Amino acid sequence: MRLDISYDGLGFAGWARQNDLRTVQGDLERVFSQILRAPCSITCAGRTDAGVHARGQVAHLDVALPQWDWYFDAGRINRALPHDIRVWTVTVAPDGFDARFSALWRRYSYRVSDDPCGPDPLVRHVSMPWFRRLDLDLMNEAGGSLVGEHDFTAFCKYRERATSIRDITHLRWEREPSGTAALHIQADAFCRSMVRSIVGSLLPVGDGRKPITWPAEVLAGRARTPWVAVMPAYPLVLEEVGYPPAHELGARQAITRSLRAPVPQS
Amino acid sequence: MRLDISYDGLGFAGWARQNDLRTVQGDLERVFSQILRAPCSITCAGRTDAGVHARGQVAHLDVALPQWDWYFDAGRINRALPHDIRVWTVTVAPDGFDARFSALWRRYSYRVSDDPCGPDPLVRHVSMPWFRRLDLDLMNEAGGSLVGEHDFTAFCKYRERATSIRDITHLRWEREPSGTAALHIQADAFCRSMVRSIVGSLLPVGDGRKPITWPAEVLAGRARTPWVAVMPAYPLVLEEVGYPPAHELGARQAITRSLRAPVPQS
Repeated sequence: MRLDISYDGLGFAGWARQNDLRTVQGDLERVFSQILRAPCSITCAGRTDAGVHARGQVAHLDVALPQWDWYFDAGRINRALPHDIRVWTVTVAPDGFDARFSALWRRYSYRVSDDPCGPDPLVRHVSMPWFRRLDLDLMNEAGGSLVGEHDFTAFCKYRERATSIRDITHLRWEREPSGTAALHIQADAFCRSMVRSIVGSLLPVGDGRKPITWPAEVLAGRARTPWVAVMPAYPLVLEEVGYPPAHELGARQAITRSLRAPVPQS
Repeated sequence: MRLDISYDGLGFAGWARQNDLRTVQGDLERVFSQILRAPCSITCAGRTDAGVHARGQVAHLDVALPQWDWYFDAGRINRALPHDIRVWTVTVAPDGFDARFSALWRRYSYRVSDDPCGPDPLVRHVSMPWFRRLDLDLMNEAGGSLVGEHDFTAFCKYRERATSIRDITHLRWEREPSGTAALHIQADAFCRSMVRSIVGSLLPVGDGRKPITWPAEVLAGRARTPWVAVMPAYPLVLEEVGYPPAHELGARQAITRSLRAPVPQS
């Protein structure tokens, strides 16, 4: 089954199940296990960190039920779920569908208010304050140097035996009607804290404290640097996940598994 | 001085100052009194109820300071204020300006999610769930009968010796891109709980349980009826307040005072 999900990350210690902490996976697996009267395991496309939100998270779970449509009534599921998680649709996934490994791309947004008064109170939970004015043209020019396939080690939390090569296909800051600066960024996949580190490298360009070439220099350094701050999680939203047509799902899964799997130790 | 203000109503027992309760007026007067080193009194255009938000509240306060611009630095004021209130601008108001009595109109919005799954988690604080599908065309047709100058006693909280005659100049439901149903309503002024009662009379029309003529019948009854529910406060937002050009402020104030003042007892 494919699930399309939204959540407010504020109340969760991230997606991934943890003992004694409230997580999105934990809450979903509890409710689905109650409905199925059997333990179940739910896999998502983007394992969001603590505080990160989702408007378009996708997940799958395996069930062996002929009457799945009776079990998976959306009204019933959402009545059982807390108000900060919604499951919009539950559908039979095509053969070969894996929420994580079949995904072609993930799109995130990140919002920053550079109004000297701070963010609008009604959206302050999803928009961080920045007390210097931002030039989005500079940030888009600097961000352009990160687009494409690169080794993003400089922007990623270290993970042993895992590749940091990712392909950013879109990176654009836009001024919303409210005045908020919003980053829209899309890649085949993101490593941990990658969007928040990229934002941390672009804001000092936007306010004039760093040259436009700085993010490219950080990228080329291929090492974490203390000069790039990892920005807070609460303005980050997983907006959408893209999948190939049904007949390509299996092939895509095989490719991703070979790319993302830990490098075998020699 | 004229203040332009936003706030998240969730943490406040409404606008009006109260002993032992957190209110918007209370928080603002405390901060402005600290800055002015003297007690001050702040008057607003729309005294919102507990839980009601504002994106465009307007207020005034009287000061006798030649160096007002030094005192009223927006950065300084907002650093002193909690994050759920922002003062966007502090400007010298024209002669005759009174935030309440000079106002020509107030515009509010009210959001309802009729998705059977409930509201999007990221906006659930400002959008109420309605578990039947709403036909906005029916609601707009029914709402049209409330537009114009009427005695809105049927939709207002009773207040002794006060008029309930108001002039609604705009009332329209719109489907937003997210799917949320949003009411935009404008009038010269609103009496207490008027928007929330109007919403309570239109939702049962939109879901087909009441005839399209029902809100007009309620209005004509000129008495509160238990059949009209007062909807919750948290989806209600004061969006904007309109004022006449500077040279008409004094005249407008005199008219409003005569209209809104309590009717003298004989």
